[in-house]
Amino acid sequence: MGSLEFERSVAGYAARDSSGHLSPYNYTLRNPGPQDVVLDVIYCGICHTDLHQIRNDMGMSQYPMVPGHEVVGVVTEIGNEVERFKIGEHVGVGCIVGSCKSCKACGGKMEQYCNKRIWTYNDVFPDGKPTQGGFASSMVVDQMFVVHIPQNLPLEQAAPLLCAGVTVYSPMKHFGLAEAGKRCGILGLGGVGHIGVKIAKAFGLHVTVISSSDKKKEEALEVLGADAYLVSKDATQMQEAAESLDFILDTIPVNHPLEPYLSLLKISGKLIMLGVVPEPLHFVSPLLILGRRSIAGSFIGSMEETQEVLNFCAEKNVSCQIEIVGIEYLNKAMERLDKNDVRYRFVVDVAASNLEK
Amino acid sequence: MGSLEFERSVAGYAARDSSGHLSPYNYTLRNPGPQDVVLDVIYCGICHTDLHQIRNDMGMSQYPMVPGHEVVGVVTEIGNEVERFKIGEHVGVGCIVGSCKSCKACGGKMEQYCNKRIWTYNDVFPDGKPTQGGFASSMVVDQMFVVHIPQNLPLEQAAPLLCAGVTVYSPMKHFGLAEAGKRCGILGLGGVGHIGVKIAKAFGLHVTVISSSDKKKEEALEVLGADAYLVSKDATQMQEAAESLDFILDTIPVNHPLEPYLSLLKISGKLIMLGVVPEPLHFVSPLLILGRRSIAGSFIGSMEETQEVLNFCAEKNVSCQIEIVGIEYLNKAMERLDKNDVRYRFVVDVAASNLEK
Repeated sequence: MGSLEFERSVAGYAARDSSGHLSPYNYTLRNPGPQDVVLDVIYCGICHTDLHQIRNDMGMSQYPMVPGHEVVGVVTEIGNEVERFKIGEHVGVGCIVGSCKSCKACGGKMEQYCNKRIWTYNDVFPDGKPTQGGFASSMVVDQMFVVHIPQNLPLEQAAPLLCAGVTVYSPMKHFGLAEAGKRCGILGLGGVGHIGVKIAKAFGLHVTVISSSDKKKEEALEVLGADAYLVSKDATQMQEAAESLDFILDTIPVNHPLEPYLSLLKISGKLIMLGVVPEPLHFVSPLLILGRRSIAGSFIGSMEETQEVLNFCAEKNVSCQIEIVGIEYLNKAMERLDKNDVRYRFVVDVAASNLEK
Repeated sequence: MGSLEFERSVAGYAARDSSGHLSPYNYTLRNPGPQDVVLDVIYCGICHTDLHQIRNDMGMSQYPMVPGHEVVGVVTEIGNEVERFKIGEHVGVGCIVGSCKSCKACGGKMEQYCNKRIWTYNDVFPDGKPTQGGFASSMVVDQMFVVHIPQNLPLEQAAPLLCAGVTVYSPMKHFGLAEAGKRCGILGLGGVGHIGVKIAKAFGLHVTVISSSDKKKEEALEVLGADAYLVSKDATQMQEAAESLDFILDTIPVNHPLEPYLSLLKISGKLIMLGVVPEPLHFVSPLLILGRRSIAGSFIGSMEETQEVLNFCAEKNVSCQIEIVGIEYLNKAMERLDKNDVRYRFVVDVAASNLEK
């Protein structure tokens, strides 16, 4: 390949302050090294975390910030030690773009738990340059954090799998729950929850969507293919479903009581939290002890699992419900996401947007 | 065997009210059926739960109440369908003496989680007669809830294994933690905790005792054989031990923060609660999510595991630290237990006590 030793200019959409308003922003990519892949972005999904980050909800935001961590692109250059990828190939990038590569997490193929992981955006590379995400014309990424998009998976469908998809896939695999016939609950039917229904069904599980109202009942059962729907505010329904589920994927990122959901679990059942909740959560211990139940957490997935979920969804024809928008719609999309007004994932068509470098 | 069709009189020590004071009490045993074993009590351990029950701390106490659920005895009669036990054999009885025998918990050899389990005391048999525990001359127990005491296990040593021992053994086996080299934390060094150290060491684990002060340090390391001792109030020690343990057995039965202990767990580590805490407990979700950690509960163990822990301790020469007392010392022992003034388990020598029928 040719020389990689010049700074590539890139055009993206960045937040400049905690208003979270996104506007065009030109910057340069870090110089790619021998292990790096340079890609042009084609699609990028919008995750709820993007909203938190651009608005500095977690108090750790650095601006200008180009969000986006469900990135699908095409390889345009490769470093001279890159053997896993070819120019022209379709690839994906998820939530992290770096890790220490020497700790137990990294050695155990769990680099998402490396304490030195580098976030895809709102973080810094070892050279001090800020990381910037996928709402941009191109990116440079260490090949270790790049995955292949299978041939028969539509590119726009691949995007939400890179964060939301692997977030539900990883705990199902890790905790041994991906066995046909097991009974799975999905708590919260947003971007992550709806993919949870799809992937759980593809594993052959019996899926119950648990929601505070019956608004999404018809859609959950008839469009997404869930087997049952439970309104958490209906005490009779909840009582009837007591001790019926092997596990629940809890996708609710705001404070909520855990007891009603722990009561739904069978003996040895697991409530698996996927979304960080800012406030402390509480539970009463007999619900755990007298049923050998667990409250567990799980965070995205490893790079290996990210590749697996793409391959799995390609093989099983799993498709997400997405709304494709242009990059000029990004602020409106963020507003709608904030109001939970999307079914179920926005994917930005970055390639079709006129980003001026 | 001879006729079982007459009510046997029995002498025990009962609490009459929530003062918890125990005094001699004569009553009759239920008529044994074809599946029942009649035993004369030899030893009975004192568990912290006994104290809660006699004082009605959980608001569910029925009087008169004969406590005691770590019962070692000798078989004096057997029903005509009993084939597993012989007259003269040494046997044990733990926390439960009945279950429905038809639910999934019972079918899956997890009868401790049967919703219709019958407690060894402060409960009622299906015929309406109250169950009474082991601080008494004899008991009648369904053979399904009776275990064999291995020949080479001293009888007084067997008693604490029937509740405290199986309480620590069961989660180590169930969660796959009983593997040599794994790093185990024992939180709280009381009756259950000290047996936790002994059994974990017998499995070949590396054992860290975690306590609020260094009062028990020398004893934990030099007498009980723990490998390390951690003072939870020492921030430096706790920081140095961060992310070092595969699991922690939490034996503290009163309210306590969970975060300091969750921080000690490796990726995928488990905090396993063994003692019911009356108040709700709190945790912050990132400690679970960003390390795939779990908070789990576990409750005593199955009858199969109860037999296993006895066999295991006999084979490995595991011995508990016990203080043997006479039944006339029962009130004093309860007082001392309440002040945590015992190292580490009282065992009442019931056979040597003059119980007048």
